[in-house]
Amino acid sequence: MSSRSATREPLRRVAVTGGTHGNEMSGVHLVRHWLRAPGELQRPSFAALPVLANPAAAATCRRYLGCDLNRAFTSAFLTAQATPDDPYEVTRARELNQLLGPKGSTEAFDLILDLHNTTANVGTCLIAESQQEVFIMHLCHHLQLQNPELACRVCLYKRPGEESFHVGSAAQNSLGLELGPQPQGVLRADDLARMRTVVASALDFVELFNRGTAFPAFEMDAYRYLDGVDFPRTAEGELAGTVHPQLQDCDFEPLRPGAPIFQMFSGEDVFYQGDSTVYPIFINEAAYYEKGVAFIQTEKISFSVPALP
Amino acid sequence: MSSRSATREPLRRVAVTGGTHGNEMSGVHLVRHWLRAPGELQRPSFAALPVLANPAAAATCRRYLGCDLNRAFTSAFLTAQATPDDPYEVTRARELNQLLGPKGSTEAFDLILDLHNTTANVGTCLIAESQQEVFIMHLCHHLQLQNPELACRVCLYKRPGEESFHVGSAAQNSLGLELGPQPQGVLRADDLARMRTVVASALDFVELFNRGTAFPAFEMDAYRYLDGVDFPRTAEGELAGTVHPQLQDCDFEPLRPGAPIFQMFSGEDVFYQGDSTVYPIFINEAAYYEKGVAFIQTEKISFSVPALP
Repeated sequence: MSSRSATREPLRRVAVTGGTHGNEMSGVHLVRHWLRAPGELQRPSFAALPVLANPAAAATCRRYLGCDLNRAFTSAFLTAQATPDDPYEVTRARELNQLLGPKGSTEAFDLILDLHNTTANVGTCLIAESQQEVFIMHLCHHLQLQNPELACRVCLYKRPGEESFHVGSAAQNSLGLELGPQPQGVLRADDLARMRTVVASALDFVELFNRGTAFPAFEMDAYRYLDGVDFPRTAEGELAGTVHPQLQDCDFEPLRPGAPIFQMFSGEDVFYQGDSTVYPIFINEAAYYEKGVAFIQTEKISFSVPALP
Repeated sequence: MSSRSATREPLRRVAVTGGTHGNEMSGVHLVRHWLRAPGELQRPSFAALPVLANPAAAATCRRYLGCDLNRAFTSAFLTAQATPDDPYEVTRARELNQLLGPKGSTEAFDLILDLHNTTANVGTCLIAESQQEVFIMHLCHHLQLQNPELACRVCLYKRPGEESFHVGSAAQNSLGLELGPQPQGVLRADDLARMRTVVASALDFVELFNRGTAFPAFEMDAYRYLDGVDFPRTAEGELAGTVHPQLQDCDFEPLRPGAPIFQMFSGEDVFYQGDSTVYPIFINEAAYYEKGVAFIQTEKISFSVPALP
């Protein structure tokens, strides 16, 4: 993480990446629009750079061609010798790391906003690495205060000791915006407008920060990733059921021990066997079937975020 | 079309095809389930055959690999000499035509029910070729009467003089079931249950027909295809806007001259310029972007269907 919050240097190099997954249409088409009409990304103290992160996947409206670009920003991928057999996204990750990084260096961009959609009913979801990112927590808090109607929820995805792997990690600070539900390959006007509003608010926050605005300490609620839960499957690995109607679309709602989570094709229900209440998110996300994830369990936490001086 | 309604021979050879588009999950997973547990497709006078229509596309959760299987049942494709360069779906169409056809022959299956999903808010949509299909119109009427809560709507897709091209056209009678909205690659329990209910009702109708039940004449409303309307685009062919929020999700509702249909990324609205009211369907269907279709205009018609003796 950047020491931005301590040194209070203005953020001049800001990027907005869309199409990291080529079939998540709000980001794909907003970035294409901003490349034609960049004024919307300008503020007095900086101009954010729109970047179509995975142009080849966007051109064919697929999540990726060879592998998930948003898992390719590990040091193993970024520093390995290039070979002709590298998946397209590994090569593209190195290009983006040249443009927006290098990851972990002081030459890296100050901030990346990475735009995503999900088929899950997450509403407006802000994905950060951890609560230690003070600048990003203040950005999230600003988005919540400025857009109360969007009920922006903060998710903390990075597990202890895990290396960051997402596109935004090329920069010194990053925030993922996950808006849903929107089907893959569909561009809904309402989701587009919502994404645009959140990006505008985020750029406004950077502008306020650059002008020296003081941001006081606050208390924050967030959802921290625990683990993924797979669908019920046959011995051959085929689906044997799907997300229960009582869980479907209930992202961020408490899931209590004994509540139904799956409905088998044969008719029976499967119940949550855990000992404690969890908060499922990304329930029935299309892209996670191949990962063996029907939903992600999170725990709800509260913490104090110190002032930005 | 079959002369089934005149001769009143029972229907013995019935198929239920799913996964014609490999990312439309209700059909993919119902057919896989029925292949393991076929009892649900059995009736006293027949047993319907479950068929995974496009197994290669279903395995990779894509609509198709080479070309749209549901457009490959033309005589040109079915009768041409096979070559190593044929798209997978053309080869597969010939296989299915051997299994379920041959198209246009008396050896062909009596009935195919072909299961589809759409990202559009069509509810439960029954796709037939034309109102001339008396047996199929009675089947649709039965589905409407047996499942009033599903508000099944009938669409007539075939334009005058056009050759049929869909999977079901291999059989002597066919009906397409389009359930939405469901994202591509997502299996919702509610849509799965609805699809299952409609298929069960359709098989019950065949059983009643086979037992000699009389079906009186009736009046039917239906939506007949007119043409597709493309998204607004830039000179380079990129999207310049998307479906207007006032049109989104309003499938089958009247669209009147002067009503907004698109919202441009630049902010302006685009209005419907036609002279008469139409009924848009498949509004913002993911698979139709590549076809240049933001929605399909239909006209609402009413007609009399004669009795099945």
